[in-house]
Amino acid sequence: MPETLATADLRQWIEGKDAASLQQQLAPLHPAEAAERLADLSPEELAAFVELVGPAEALTPFEFTPFELQKQALIHLSRQSLAQLINLMSPDDRADLVDDLDEAFQEKVLSLLIKSERENLKKLLTYPEDSAGAHMTTNYALLRRADTVGEALQQLRLQAPSKETVYYAYVVDQARRLQGLVSLRELIMAPPRAKIGELMNTRVLSVAARADIEDAAAQMTRYDFLALPVVDADNRLVGIITYDDIYDIIAEEATEDMYRLANLDATEKISAPLLRSVRLRVPWLLTNLLTALGAAIVISRFTDSIEKVVALASMMTMVASLGGSAGTQTLTVVVRSIALGEVSLKDNWRVLCKETGIGLCTGCVVGLVIGLVAWAWFHNPWLAGILWVAMTLNQVLGGLMGALVPLVMRKLGRDPALGSNIFVTASTDMGGFLIFLGLATLLMSHLLVSG
Amino acid sequence: MPETLATADLRQWIEGKDAASLQQQLAPLHPAEAAERLADLSPEELAAFVELVGPAEALTPFEFTPFELQKQALIHLSRQSLAQLINLMSPDDRADLVDDLDEAFQEKVLSLLIKSERENLKKLLTYPEDSAGAHMTTNYALLRRADTVGEALQQLRLQAPSKETVYYAYVVDQARRLQGLVSLRELIMAPPRAKIGELMNTRVLSVAARADIEDAAAQMTRYDFLALPVVDADNRLVGIITYDDIYDIIAEEATEDMYRLANLDATEKISAPLLRSVRLRVPWLLTNLLTALGAAIVISRFTDSIEKVVALASMMTMVASLGGSAGTQTLTVVVRSIALGEVSLKDNWRVLCKETGIGLCTGCVVGLVIGLVAWAWFHNPWLAGILWVAMTLNQVLGGLMGALVPLVMRKLGRDPALGSNIFVTASTDMGGFLIFLGLATLLMSHLLVSG
Repeated sequence: MPETLATADLRQWIEGKDAASLQQQLAPLHPAEAAERLADLSPEELAAFVELVGPAEALTPFEFTPFELQKQALIHLSRQSLAQLINLMSPDDRADLVDDLDEAFQEKVLSLLIKSERENLKKLLTYPEDSAGAHMTTNYALLRRADTVGEALQQLRLQAPSKETVYYAYVVDQARRLQGLVSLRELIMAPPRAKIGELMNTRVLSVAARADIEDAAAQMTRYDFLALPVVDADNRLVGIITYDDIYDIIAEEATEDMYRLANLDATEKISAPLLRSVRLRVPWLLTNLLTALGAAIVISRFTDSIEKVVALASMMTMVASLGGSAGTQTLTVVVRSIALGEVSLKDNWRVLCKETGIGLCTGCVVGLVIGLVAWAWFHNPWLAGILWVAMTLNQVLGGLMGALVPLVMRKLGRDPALGSNIFVTASTDMGGFLIFLGLATLLMSHLLVSG
Repeated sequence: MPETLATADLRQWIEGKDAASLQQQLAPLHPAEAAERLADLSPEELAAFVELVGPAEALTPFEFTPFELQKQALIHLSRQSLAQLINLMSPDDRADLVDDLDEAFQEKVLSLLIKSERENLKKLLTYPEDSAGAHMTTNYALLRRADTVGEALQQLRLQAPSKETVYYAYVVDQARRLQGLVSLRELIMAPPRAKIGELMNTRVLSVAARADIEDAAAQMTRYDFLALPVVDADNRLVGIITYDDIYDIIAEEATEDMYRLANLDATEKISAPLLRSVRLRVPWLLTNLLTALGAAIVISRFTDSIEKVVALASMMTMVASLGGSAGTQTLTVVVRSIALGEVSLKDNWRVLCKETGIGLCTGCVVGLVIGLVAWAWFHNPWLAGILWVAMTLNQVLGGLMGALVPLVMRKLGRDPALGSNIFVTASTDMGGFLIFLGLATLLMSHLLVSG
């Protein structure tokens, strides 16, 4: 068993058209492992590999290779191999791939599909990118309600090779409306003569094809489902989402929130070309610049005070910085809890009060520490006191805004993570400078006396 | 079918000891749905519910209720019901629960378990919290290699009611070492007389019981596995991890990274009491205070310059703030890509160069914009130029540190997200002030002349 199959060897066999060696070395590997080796090839080499071992053999590892590589390799395939490969691919992977091709090549691929698959693909392509329909597979197992368990098992035996899963099988009526669900586990436990119609669960949860895929993920993770049926507007079964799709969706959802909290475009990839990353990040930084400019304007209103007590210039940044930290802490907890369904709408007030309260407590503690430091540093108890109060108030503001912004966003039906960090830091920056420099200006006489 | 089963009704039935109504209303619901209703009850009420409908009946919805509620309800159960419930629970859920009980009550629960389950539980409790062993179930399906497919199916029929899954079944030798794996899908497709020993996959991937559960999750998501066997140091099968565990793990892993990037303790919950949240957040804020203090000290070295040109005070915060934003963007992309396995060690240099390059580009653009704004505002081209250069250099620093810190952390075998944000913002804060105020001090004559 070759534990380390070098890319160089793969290349050599492909160049030498040594199909036998390729098959022999790749066969014992899991398709995902084989795909990992193939991922190091160029698109041309991957295409040559598909031609060499044949599309049927190459199919599964091919489907596990990175998406971009797949896309580029398709272009280098012969018409015949392309037709074969694309007809063999699982409908959901194929739809993802074709959706991303440029239009002329998309047309070519469509023309190579057999009619039923072409219709199917065209339908899949109409679903919005983040919908359940765009992620579902149309290869699910069907049973008839009049079948006996024995007949159903025979049916699944026949369907197994071509279906994404046979562990859940569905029953539909003549209009293809979803009637029930039987798991293979129930089937093997049931008496062979029992009827599917009696055995099946009729209370089947499903998701609408146009619903957000995150809704499907939420249902599946909540109920620990292995698969979830997808229905159209007329409740007709059109596909299923399986657990492995959900693995990806949960991770993608989290990435999206994480990126949005850091003011990043959710579609950015570490592998993206440098200039694409720059293009995606600059608009966010410019928005950030606007709020930073707001803070600078606040400061500029207090230049008189700063000129008089220049120590304010070094102290003010601490107030803003710590307020921002407290705000980001709250924002992150709240956004994540909303995403995980841990905060319902009726919890809004409780969360808001709690987070503001946390801001008050942490502000008191942290403010006291920095107040004492400032006292030792500048020997001015008034400066220390102002710092303490400003730090506390700004962390209250951070807690309040960190909770308020995402909760209001959700109430408005928007993504709680999107852009919310900008609002929160804008308020703690401007608020922090305003509170601290404002207090210092009001109490300027005390700062000057003992300064 | 009651779509909305009010908590008030539940309470009334529990108080009135109306077991029949409870059973009738909850029976048609999915256990997770029933659990959602039960979650509104107090621990005492939940315990009363279990007593009323009986532990066997209450078991599945009970296992779906929130963990804290389960824990507290246990205390209110009669000895007999507690014994019955705890013996019926699935081993992994039971272990999680018992692990969290206080020691005296833990002893009581252990004493109520039948011997084999007690040994099993004690073993499960020895695994570290984030290990594969702590998340596995010991209820997996076993087959003998000498069995025929027909016999194996008969075996699985018998095992199905008590096993977490029968879709994957495992073959072990006499020392319980893992020999092979058969899926139920393969079983139903195979000829009834085929031998399991011939049919089974012998190249079975597994995870060590003491390995991090994240390793198990990485394997399962990479290969789209439904379950993964867990083995001890002698390669003996001790349990399996199933897809529904992985749903939770992927989400928890993401939460952990997200929290660490926001300088939050990964164990904080939105439902935690206020003072616990305060206790968890204050240490992070104090660390942050240290770095903010560092930045304040940097500023204090330049008070002369600030006194001369007070506009510096409002401009310097923009340089620090935007550098921090750029650093956080890079940090987030790199940390997430490491977590998703998109960056291997050999990519380190590429990532470092790319992210530094992005900082250069975004810094140039954003710095130019703010430079022009400053020119219009203060009518001083030198200030504008200094701002442009400082902004650019600080974003280069942000990109560099945002990539360097997590990559070095990984190299050192530490969590790339833990505390890294502190390092990055410390460098962009101190660096930003140093670069901007330093340049301004060097070129002070120009700032004063046309200021």
